[in-house]
Amino acid sequence: MLSVNHLLGIKDLTLKDIELILETASTFKEVINRPIKKVPSLRDMTIANVFFENSTRTRLSFELAEKRLSADVINFSASGSSVKKGETLLDTVNNILAMKVDMIVMRHASPGAPHFLAKHIQANIINAGDGTHEHPTQALLDAFSMREKLGEIRGKKIAIIGDISHSRVALSNIFALQKLGAEVMVCGPSTLIPKYMKDLGVKVEHQVLRALQWCDVANVLRIQLERQQAQNFPSLREYALYYGINKTLLEKLDREIVIMHPGPINRGVEITSDVADSSHSIILQQVENGVAVRMAVLYLLAQKSKPFD
Amino acid sequence: MLSVNHLLGIKDLTLKDIELILETASTFKEVINRPIKKVPSLRDMTIANVFFENSTRTRLSFELAEKRLSADVINFSASGSSVKKGETLLDTVNNILAMKVDMIVMRHASPGAPHFLAKHIQANIINAGDGTHEHPTQALLDAFSMREKLGEIRGKKIAIIGDISHSRVALSNIFALQKLGAEVMVCGPSTLIPKYMKDLGVKVEHQVLRALQWCDVANVLRIQLERQQAQNFPSLREYALYYGINKTLLEKLDREIVIMHPGPINRGVEITSDVADSSHSIILQQVENGVAVRMAVLYLLAQKSKPFD
Amino acid sequence: MLSVNHLLGIKDLTLKDIELILETASTFKEVINRPIKKVPSLRDMTIANVFFENSTRTRLSFELAEKRLSADVINFSASGSSVKKGETLLDTVNNILAMKVDMIVMRHASPGAPHFLAKHIQANIINAGDGTHEHPTQALLDAFSMREKLGEIRGKKIAIIGDISHSRVALSNIFALQKLGAEVMVCGPSTLIPKYMKDLGVKVEHQVLRALQWCDVANVLRIQLERQQAQNFPSLREYALYYGINKTLLEKLDREIVIMHPGPINRGVEITSDVADSSHSIILQQVENGVAVRMAVLYLLAQKSKPFD
Repeated sequence: MLSVNHLLGIKDLTLKDIELILETASTFKEVINRPIKKVPSLRDMTIANVFFENSTRTRLSFELAEKRLSADVINFSASGSSVKKGETLLDTVNNILAMKVDMIVMRHASPGAPHFLAKHIQANIINAGDGTHEHPTQALLDAFSMREKLGEIRGKKIAIIGDISHSRVALSNIFALQKLGAEVMVCGPSTLIPKYMKDLGVKVEHQVLRALQWCDVANVLRIQLERQQAQNFPSLREYALYYGINKTLLEKLDREIVIMHPGPINRGVEITSDVADSSHSIILQQVENGVAVRMAVLYLLAQKSKPFD
Repeated sequence: MLSVNHLLGIKDLTLKDIELILETASTFKEVINRPIKKVPSLRDMTIANVFFENSTRTRLSFELAEKRLSADVINFSASGSSVKKGETLLDTVNNILAMKVDMIVMRHASPGAPHFLAKHIQANIINAGDGTHEHPTQALLDAFSMREKLGEIRGKKIAIIGDISHSRVALSNIFALQKLGAEVMVCGPSTLIPKYMKDLGVKVEHQVLRALQWCDVANVLRIQLERQQAQNFPSLREYALYYGINKTLLEKLDREIVIMHPGPINRGVEITSDVADSSHSIILQQVENGVAVRMAVLYLLAQKSKPFD
Repeated sequence: MLSVNHLLGIKDLTLKDIELILETASTFKEVINRPIKKVPSLRDMTIANVFFENSTRTRLSFELAEKRLSADVINFSASGSSVKKGETLLDTVNNILAMKVDMIVMRHASPGAPHFLAKHIQANIINAGDGTHEHPTQALLDAFSMREKLGEIRGKKIAIIGDISHSRVALSNIFALQKLGAEVMVCGPSTLIPKYMKDLGVKVEHQVLRALQWCDVANVLRIQLERQQAQNFPSLREYALYYGINKTLLEKLDREIVIMHPGPINRGVEITSDVADSSHSIILQQVENGVAVRMAVLYLLAQKSKPFD
């Protein structure tokens, strides 16, 4: 059983927790690849997906995971909701819970929002991304995908490349990979790498070729076009030129490395099509594994919520 | 069995109808508090939630009630729909019904919209709020919550406090409470109390302390921030000062009264946090009871729709 | 079994395919008119409704068809999705499919979008409208409704009246009706009839009375108010005067013709209320038949997707 009642961040998990989630996800991956993709495990639970920020992809993945587990699903999105009417976060969530909802999956723009909630409510909470802080299920599916590809994470070298500052994926990945015994490097222009990275025990690199030469896996982050006005680099073309991963770069390496990306990808910006669609890339496997990993997290937290367990 | 085929407003219900709904809701409240919260009652029905106006909270409560009854649920919201393409209300609803939908739950900005529909279509309609007119399921869940707390409504004194003019909750509450034998008072600034209130046989009071001294239950309405431009009072701060319910006011009373609010609440405006979160308040019970009451309404109307009953 | 793996357009179907879909739809029409409207046929399938353009009506019809077949349903709408974040169509759909979705129902603004997808993905695709190109399920439900009303389509005369240029309905109807052995005429102002119509073997007529005198069925298309700025006719009033179908026109005919409309209708523009609500009109039957026809298409394509069939 997990040591926690909520999945707020990877930081709070023990290595044993992570191992348990990854093993349970393996079982569920078999389930979703059978002709009958459903199990009745959460048949009596109601799960609310509470998204204060849009995220079609993550919401869809959670919704499918919940349906595969036979849970009842309620989607709540902030647009046009009582949030705009001046209600507090805690009141909104307490209202949803008063309707006998058993578990909350929440995406929120503010770092720490799910942690705040967890202190004040009974139900289990899963953080589906809190601002630029953590996105724990992404880190877990990334770890699952790496282990599936490489057999073992311990001792492997992982480079996270791109906009580290604005990424909720980077931090969760660093925590997960370090707990699993990997070495982690972050690589990007210095304007996109926070100062505190060195305190986390990760290597920092500004030259992408050197990062690729060092690593077994390159986890390439998305450049968020919508944040381009922040002017952290001169232009997309310049970014692609200095930090974009392309076939030419990969051919300079003396061995094959694994390419990952949390999606959605900007082809031609942080990654070219010949890389994204190559045999190096496990991008679509990450998406598939996302459903299995989320099933595992939901299933394991549901066990914590049942008083008779 | 109910005397009506639709739930358009409390005005049309007999006392026996209301009693039947409240008793049925008691049974369903037990259901949703069991580990297995579902009953197969409406397994063969399809219910469309047709919301021409946003209302996440009410829609969610209906959707959960429908799912607990095992109905198939279809959500139709006006944004981006054929409504914007110039289709009439009747055509929109007839189209939904032609797809073999059995029941319509409708929220509409125009008072009387569900009454108009009821004259022209076969299916059962539940009014989930028509402009500032009626919101019958809110009044029923309020009555259910009062009865649950006080044992009996007959002879009790209920003060409805706040913006009576723009509230769909006030009118439905007055009708329900009077039928159930309560005395009703409305309290607020004169700019927010319609002239016809006296014709309904309710007391009108402008001093909030006097209202609280008189009543057993204070049902505090929401100040709709989005309508502040109407200038019915000078400022939110002034409103809170004269009509906000706070601990100091409650401590001036010689006995404990019950505090209700239909939500979403504006903490510090119509009600302070120390009141909303106190043992006086049954605000979250109202939300929980809302699902049970809506299950009862759906269940009882479904019986009217079956030709073989 | 169908000769195709996708329903991209009527153009690709054989007469035998169309006959099979219409016959299967007859069976499903019986199903949805029973007290228990569901069959377990697609219990193990997950279907994603991927709408890059709003269409409440078509989406609702597909969603109900899917639920009647007991499929798991996922709704993906482009607003607020990764599409806005610069992701390609193929990446978006591949991501959805990686989550183990079995079938894609897609509405897209660009003609040919589903055809492009079909070349690159494994799953079955149903075109729910691609720009002004095809809308095959609409044509199939129109054919189903005509056959239901007239007994037989072969040899019948069908006039499609209105804005042929901007209609995705017209082209699909022409292909379906010609394959089924009907004669087709298009009628409208010359600014709204594309030049290539004559190459398709359809009659072109500009006088609406002559079209009505000729036909057994008039399929009246919607004037899209939102496109009025294109100035293809002087004003709505003028359009209604010259091309609107009203009772007076119908009374000039020597026999009763059938009136159809794909909806949503603009009463008083392309059709008056006394015609839309008359016994000539089978507009609501079209909506009902839409669910049955879509069930047939989903069911028949699902058979093509199962390797063990």
